[in-house]
Amino acid sequence: MGETDRLVEIVRGRNAKTVGLQFPVGLRTKAVELAQEIEAKARVTCIVSADPSFGACDVPDMPVDLIVHLGHAPMPHLRYDRVFFYDLGSPPLTSLAFIDAALPILPPRIGLLTTYQFREWMPQIKEYLEKKGRDVKIGPPDRRVAYAGQLLGCDYHTATVIQEEVDGYLYVGTGDFHPLGVAILVDKPVVIADPERGTARRLDDVKDRILRQRHGAIARAMDARTFGIIVSKKIGQIRMEMAMDLKRLAEKHGRAAEIFLMDLVSPDFLEGYRVDAWVNTACPRIAIEDYLQYKKPILTPQEFEIVLGEREWSDYAFDEIRAY
Amino acid sequence: MGETDRLVEIVRGRNAKTVGLQFPVGLRTKAVELAQEIEAKARVTCIVSADPSFGACDVPDMPVDLIVHLGHAPMPHLRYDRVFFYDLGSPPLTSLAFIDAALPILPPRIGLLTTYQFREWMPQIKEYLEKKGRDVKIGPPDRRVAYAGQLLGCDYHTATVIQEEVDGYLYVGTGDFHPLGVAILVDKPVVIADPERGTARRLDDVKDRILRQRHGAIARAMDARTFGIIVSKKIGQIRMEMAMDLKRLAEKHGRAAEIFLMDLVSPDFLEGYRVDAWVNTACPRIAIEDYLQYKKPILTPQEFEIVLGEREWSDYAFDEIRAY
Repeated sequence: MGETDRLVEIVRGRNAKTVGLQFPVGLRTKAVELAQEIEAKARVTCIVSADPSFGACDVPDMPVDLIVHLGHAPMPHLRYDRVFFYDLGSPPLTSLAFIDAALPILPPRIGLLTTYQFREWMPQIKEYLEKKGRDVKIGPPDRRVAYAGQLLGCDYHTATVIQEEVDGYLYVGTGDFHPLGVAILVDKPVVIADPERGTARRLDDVKDRILRQRHGAIARAMDARTFGIIVSKKIGQIRMEMAMDLKRLAEKHGRAAEIFLMDLVSPDFLEGYRVDAWVNTACPRIAIEDYLQYKKPILTPQEFEIVLGEREWSDYAFDEIRAY
Repeated sequence: MGETDRLVEIVRGRNAKTVGLQFPVGLRTKAVELAQEIEAKARVTCIVSADPSFGACDVPDMPVDLIVHLGHAPMPHLRYDRVFFYDLGSPPLTSLAFIDAALPILPPRIGLLTTYQFREWMPQIKEYLEKKGRDVKIGPPDRRVAYAGQLLGCDYHTATVIQEEVDGYLYVGTGDFHPLGVAILVDKPVVIADPERGTARRLDDVKDRILRQRHGAIARAMDARTFGIIVSKKIGQIRMEMAMDLKRLAEKHGRAAEIFLMDLVSPDFLEGYRVDAWVNTACPRIAIEDYLQYKKPILTPQEFEIVLGEREWSDYAFDEIRAY
């Protein structure tokens, strides 16, 4: 049974009249078609959420009987209210050329990692690598991650949990951010195998460049007198307690800090406020990936601790969000 | 007693521990200073809302004991929950040069209009104009507008309610949008007196240019098969019933329409969706002022009725939001 049929059954079971649909940017092209299909098959009115959605941490509430969220796996520790996660599955695995490209640069014992999108490929890739003589581990999920071997931009549990058992990691995916987090959290080589380009590469240069940039951000914030501490409103990103702790920590060290609460964190929305530097407790990707878009230095909580003298640069840690 | 003292009394009366602060863009420079002042005087923790705020229609909920909103007057028909409207008052009226500049182009009987920012100047300007021999009317407020003579970008009641009694209008303010709405809704001359530039001018050319642009938008949308109808989540902008009516109207005329619900309406957030044209039921300024930022034509509800053949171009009406 297809996902739409499964959804139609749930709509009927709940006697839903209105259905909200949430898409990440990459799936927007499917939105109107899916809304029309659901309206025709389930005899409901669909409402597309046009607030951007960046993950299962970010499921906006909607005035509808049922919310349908696409493109992300639910985070096990969150309580979602009337949300159906519409599973598009992984695309067909048509070639292992990207794994072949990775083989020459892989150590003997490897941890296999990926994102939600490619999770269904994991057993096949593991088997292939084992045939090629590698010892392959896939880390089990935890309270914030749904699938074995799955990484989030804010959670590297499936990598760190197996760090003693591997010599390095193979990340199957397209971007730099997730494997970067692994490379910074665990001092072992990370290889990216990119299924879209069919190529593989080591991550060392990216890691060095980003660490230099983070060192620069910390240096730029060293003399800041007033900090703005950003807190997200999104259900899986709220870290208000941590922000309050950081505010008190700043004040203990003779710095001023104010809390800034927001839904979408965007450089435009922060312009004009008289702070010298930002500390971001929302999605950890923001300070790292969007760094150059911000006029003022933007730090992770751990970097802010370095600025305040509460942590050494040698204890630098990549920011992760923990489930409480 | 100053506004901050009045606020401190309310904080004490409510025993509030946390105070949320909301600023329009133009007041962001005051945010940190005011937060620090309130924290010192009222012994609370302040949380600045960094979601952009565009009016009293747009008061985001916050997890605090008291919300402080600056820069806008409350809309009488809305129920605000624990919101204190911090009144900065009007700036001092130091010169009437902009009124002198308007005098030569003003008809004998004029309606006096302005925005929240300059409302305290109205009696003095009225008296001055009367001394110069003009008959001056100031329209009373209604359920959506707090002050006599006050315009909102979505409500021109204080202009239309006196249209039979005046030969034209004098708008005191800095932008084109509000007087443009008056000029389109009432077929009488509108003069803008700009207190910041100290100048005055008639609005005729702006009105002609915008009406040509609106005509163009309607023409571009005439062959659209699929419409996206935008609905705002903001308390003073939600028009879901109207959107549902427009969806049914579209379907009656053999067009497809899907509802798009969002908080902030922004061109980026609408990219990628497969619609041929947008219909905006959120803030009426969006379709008019931001028109050129959208790749696809974006219409007001009244313009959409023209596209569907339910209204004549000769009945063109500027969009306003009505209180139900």
